[in-house]
Amino acid sequence: MIIAVDAAGGDYYPENPVKGSIQALDEMAELTVVLLGPEDIIEQELSKHEYDEQRLLVQHAPDIIEMDESPAQAVKSKQNSSIVSGIGMHKAGKCKAFVSAGNTGALLAASTFLLGKLEGVSRPTIAAMYPTVKGLRLLLDVGANLEVRPEMLVQFAQMGKIFVSEIMDIEDPQVGLLNVGEEEEKGTGVLKEAYKELQALPDFVGNVEGRDIFSAEADIFLCDGLVGNILLKFGESIPDALNTFVKKGIQQLELGAEEAQLVGKVLKASLAEFDSDRIGGVPFLGVDGVSMVGHGSSSPLAIKNMILNAAKCVDHNINEKIVASLK
Amino acid sequence: MIIAVDAAGGDYYPENPVKGSIQALDEMAELTVVLLGPEDIIEQELSKHEYDEQRLLVQHAPDIIEMDESPAQAVKSKQNSSIVSGIGMHKAGKCKAFVSAGNTGALLAASTFLLGKLEGVSRPTIAAMYPTVKGLRLLLDVGANLEVRPEMLVQFAQMGKIFVSEIMDIEDPQVGLLNVGEEEEKGTGVLKEAYKELQALPDFVGNVEGRDIFSAEADIFLCDGLVGNILLKFGESIPDALNTFVKKGIQQLELGAEEAQLVGKVLKASLAEFDSDRIGGVPFLGVDGVSMVGHGSSSPLAIKNMILNAAKCVDHNINEKIVASLK
Repeated sequence: MIIAVDAAGGDYYPENPVKGSIQALDEMAELTVVLLGPEDIIEQELSKHEYDEQRLLVQHAPDIIEMDESPAQAVKSKQNSSIVSGIGMHKAGKCKAFVSAGNTGALLAASTFLLGKLEGVSRPTIAAMYPTVKGLRLLLDVGANLEVRPEMLVQFAQMGKIFVSEIMDIEDPQVGLLNVGEEEEKGTGVLKEAYKELQALPDFVGNVEGRDIFSAEADIFLCDGLVGNILLKFGESIPDALNTFVKKGIQQLELGAEEAQLVGKVLKASLAEFDSDRIGGVPFLGVDGVSMVGHGSSSPLAIKNMILNAAKCVDHNINEKIVASLK
Repeated sequence: MIIAVDAAGGDYYPENPVKGSIQALDEMAELTVVLLGPEDIIEQELSKHEYDEQRLLVQHAPDIIEMDESPAQAVKSKQNSSIVSGIGMHKAGKCKAFVSAGNTGALLAASTFLLGKLEGVSRPTIAAMYPTVKGLRLLLDVGANLEVRPEMLVQFAQMGKIFVSEIMDIEDPQVGLLNVGEEEEKGTGVLKEAYKELQALPDFVGNVEGRDIFSAEADIFLCDGLVGNILLKFGESIPDALNTFVKKGIQQLELGAEEAQLVGKVLKASLAEFDSDRIGGVPFLGVDGVSMVGHGSSSPLAIKNMILNAAKCVDHNINEKIVASLK
């Protein structure tokens, strides 16, 4: 299986994409990776590593899309960027998936415009794997659709169910609608109508509230992209904030160095679920292809996990299953 | 100063409102409390305590508004409930504030309909004090206005500034607009327009993201009531969730009982900021009166703090200051 990897995106390119790709090749014998980006910098990074040259190829893509660049304009004007070339390769059938830690908006725009939508999909969505006390669960939309219509939320649920059961290995995932209360009549007009339409899904558990996320009262949390994006970034900030809160607690209790060290160790182990390296990346669901995007700060491990998750999406034919589920 | 207290609201009435009121009387010599609810159950609870009978009065209000009752209907049909009678007393000038741990929606409805809006206020708002690494900050709206218009967000900012500087003792509070990115052009149409209008305020720091809440990049976080309510309840769930995460961490590291106990102690001290007892309650800003609502599970300490915060709102004339700031 050939997967294209953006070697010119994220905060630590080409180093992290190159290292992550080599790690993925080591884990998956049938994998071939094509690295996209400026040839010279990729080759320079590659020269530091040992790898199977037959399975790690470089495709020159000199244009750089910066992290803060306007997505639509970048995609239009930078045809020779890693993102546009990579999605173009994917569209042409030269690879099975594209993985990037670069500009999320640009990857979303390129994926939507170039790959197109899957049959029956109204709007593609970005989903995020969210830490809970029961393990990772799915939150969507997290930013592709800041405003939603009820029928979009129903489709998000259907696409999410395929992803969660096939890729996150959760059987019969339960769907919850994030709202301000549990009762059917709560929320905005969109949420009330969505509640009605979602009742057609057998695994809809009804409205869930903010307090139900960490306790995983559902496996799939539906919301508009504004709510989801704020929750996603808030969640990402929890480990650092907790370290600060705990440092204060340690000072207040006047603990010794050894005790403080123990607490730090426990906290680190406890927050492993929040580790974005483990989570890897988030999928765009609903586009006619497999397109995974990671955090700008993605480590080699995160890139490796994104590649392996993308491969899993291909192996499990999730797009065919999404199209079938929407019929 | 006379403050009316709902002794028939919340999960633990009349015990907690009665105990909290007595504690408040002990701390504030010039305070008189009127307890509202069914006379017999209040008197029975009072008989268990010692208190200054001159300063703790009972006003019979036999109707009970349940926690899950439809607010508008409850307010209409239960004229002799603690909430409707208490707000009625406040409207008639017989007390300076009303405090309740009961049905939030009913209190909001009664406050809005009976007290009316302050001059110049488009929509009253519920604000919440939110834990951050720098201490409590203000998040609003948290549920009174699920959908907002740009000019409503501007008023929330103005009302929030008065509350934060007068009651939370933060000088020159900075206002941030919760959004999906920092750039001016990010977000929904409402958020883009709000950004423009908020620039007229000298303390507007621009868009802030979910990751900026815990680090307190602003002192006042503006959002619609859907986002705010989900964030508020998510925040409330953090201590319990963390205890679960940390228990897993302790098991994984195979710590002994003594070490586990130490970690638990540190965690408890570290999360003091999340203690809703300390926070007390949330104010309705924009109504022509002082109306504070607490969590249904409010402890005596929480009720006491709500009463003292309400008294502070009266002492600081925050409503006059709100009216002046909106002119």
